[in-house]
Amino acid sequence: MPGPALEEVLARYRASTLEEIDRHLPRGEPKRWLYGPLADYPRRVGKGLRATLCLATCCAYGGTEEESIAAAAAIEVAHCAFLVHDDIQDDSAWRRGRPSLHRSEGLPLALNTGDALALLSLELLRGSSARLGQRLGARLLDEFSGALWRTLEGQALELGWRRDGVTDLGPHDYLELVLAKTCWYTTILPLRVGALIGSWGTADPAALVRFGLLLGAAFQITDDVLNLTGAQGSYGKEIGGDLREGKRTLLLIHLLAVAPAHVRDEVRELLAGPRRERTDERLAWLTDQLLEQGSIGFARDFARGTADAAAAAFGDAFGAAPRPEHAQVIRELVDYVVDRAR
Amino acid sequence: MPGPALEEVLARYRASTLEEIDRHLPRGEPKRWLYGPLADYPRRVGKGLRATLCLATCCAYGGTEEESIAAAAAIEVAHCAFLVHDDIQDDSAWRRGRPSLHRSEGLPLALNTGDALALLSLELLRGSSARLGQRLGARLLDEFSGALWRTLEGQALELGWRRDGVTDLGPHDYLELVLAKTCWYTTILPLRVGALIGSWGTADPAALVRFGLLLGAAFQITDDVLNLTGAQGSYGKEIGGDLREGKRTLLLIHLLAVAPAHVRDEVRELLAGPRRERTDERLAWLTDQLLEQGSIGFARDFARGTADAAAAAFGDAFGAAPRPEHAQVIRELVDYVVDRAR
Repeated sequence: MPGPALEEVLARYRASTLEEIDRHLPRGEPKRWLYGPLADYPRRVGKGLRATLCLATCCAYGGTEEESIAAAAAIEVAHCAFLVHDDIQDDSAWRRGRPSLHRSEGLPLALNTGDALALLSLELLRGSSARLGQRLGARLLDEFSGALWRTLEGQALELGWRRDGVTDLGPHDYLELVLAKTCWYTTILPLRVGALIGSWGTADPAALVRFGLLLGAAFQITDDVLNLTGAQGSYGKEIGGDLREGKRTLLLIHLLAVAPAHVRDEVRELLAGPRRERTDERLAWLTDQLLEQGSIGFARDFARGTADAAAAAFGDAFGAAPRPEHAQVIRELVDYVVDRAR
Repeated sequence: MPGPALEEVLARYRASTLEEIDRHLPRGEPKRWLYGPLADYPRRVGKGLRATLCLATCCAYGGTEEESIAAAAAIEVAHCAFLVHDDIQDDSAWRRGRPSLHRSEGLPLALNTGDALALLSLELLRGSSARLGQRLGARLLDEFSGALWRTLEGQALELGWRRDGVTDLGPHDYLELVLAKTCWYTTILPLRVGALIGSWGTADPAALVRFGLLLGAAFQITDDVLNLTGAQGSYGKEIGGDLREGKRTLLLIHLLAVAPAHVRDEVRELLAGPRRERTDERLAWLTDQLLEQGSIGFARDFARGTADAAAAAFGDAFGAAPRPEHAQVIRELVDYVVDRAR
């Protein structure tokens, strides 16, 4: 469990990011169908992981919170846009402890609000990049652009596997997926952007990639485990949603690798079929198999091992930073992402 | 009917825009689930109206096709992104003579491809704005940003009216909707961007707004009529789709204004209800009413009148342009948008 100090730092960074978002929210009509939901969605309380990584890295690399707050806000709002579209794609029912946006507003308006969140993110980013001068500003846009392409590729991979019933997947495929769909925009982008802004473009952001990759993978694998074992109240999404949606998680890939042939065949069939075949009864059976075959324990251990590797890579990521004391919160995040309950 | 000369100019502008898009298409994996559909979608043959407005205006205002081709491509690709998301929102079955993307690829992957088209549009725009220098480049991004907000507002209005069964609408509401959801990005944006690039930022783009608004409205009202009266082969969308989707078009607003009370009540009920209640039989009755009450004729006349007003505003839009001969194709477009069969 994270200490109160870390929770306080996360909450403070979350608050300043929300203030920055608020300052840039367009206000106008139609409020009921666009600007209301647009203003409300970022207020659903997340962990603020991405903003914290960006702001703390900027400070560690010699910059100020003020210099990176717009970029941090842009990242958090892009994340919101992804969440809205992702929940539509998965038909997820819950997000951050409330009904997902397409369940509360209907799919058409939720899709539109997701598009608006993406545009708002771009506005925040443009504001940030304008203040950093032409050269560093353009660099920042390149960073975002690259990370967004990786995210769309990862999303396509995950959705494609599901649509076409692909089940011949190994841990390597899963890690490639997680790198693309999660790590780039969740950890690598905020770290790189923070370092670039903090150092005024002089730091080599490549030094942060390995650490970000490991931290992001530990985060995502823990998320997969929590999706099955968490408590809905604190986790904020529906428990077991991944199984229902047929997501290829590390747990399932482990199960397919170790289960006896007849179980494996049944799992494959269940994953390749349409969602309606994944009934409560079948999912209870699947959960039993994941427990029996040690897949949940395997994923937990894998996340822990990945977090340990991230901890070992921390030095390379921040060794050259002039004010490493600001990165302390990031070091603490390594344990937080695997030990968290939400 | 447009003369062969106009069709040739449109085809030529379409071809150079497609080439520009091709040059900037990212290539990589996953091809099957992302980069394949991304590359293919802009090849569905549209009218190329937006690119033509941008390119011809740039030339009329003293610039070259080369200077504005990236911006024209960015506008066409943004249009593609909107089409993909719009078809999901409306659950439209056909687009440009082929199944809509979510019908061929499934909703989740189509939504993701729409997001990728939006990102591709941004890349094209950034490339364009980088070549125009910092000041004009930033101006261009502002133009896009403003037009995109207006489009999202219009989309929210249309979807909101439908979701909440709003039927107390007059022609004024309809025109406000069309200005937001269609005119800004279909006509006003390409005209303004073309003039800004062609004049190297010296022309006043406000001169083009009135013309663009009238041209765009004539275009959209004609589209509403064609949706009901067109031939599917040439129109490219399913005939009667708007009625099925419950869209508040000028035809329906006219009908609600002139029909006897008992018809009006029935139309209101049909519009406020869910899509499944708009059966073939009910829609045939509705179409009869639109014919009987003269709503189709009214909308056709309204489109013609709007096009005439656009023709009258053409002089103000291009009077100050140094090479007005390049705007001749735009003058011809005024008749084309109301006389077209697709």
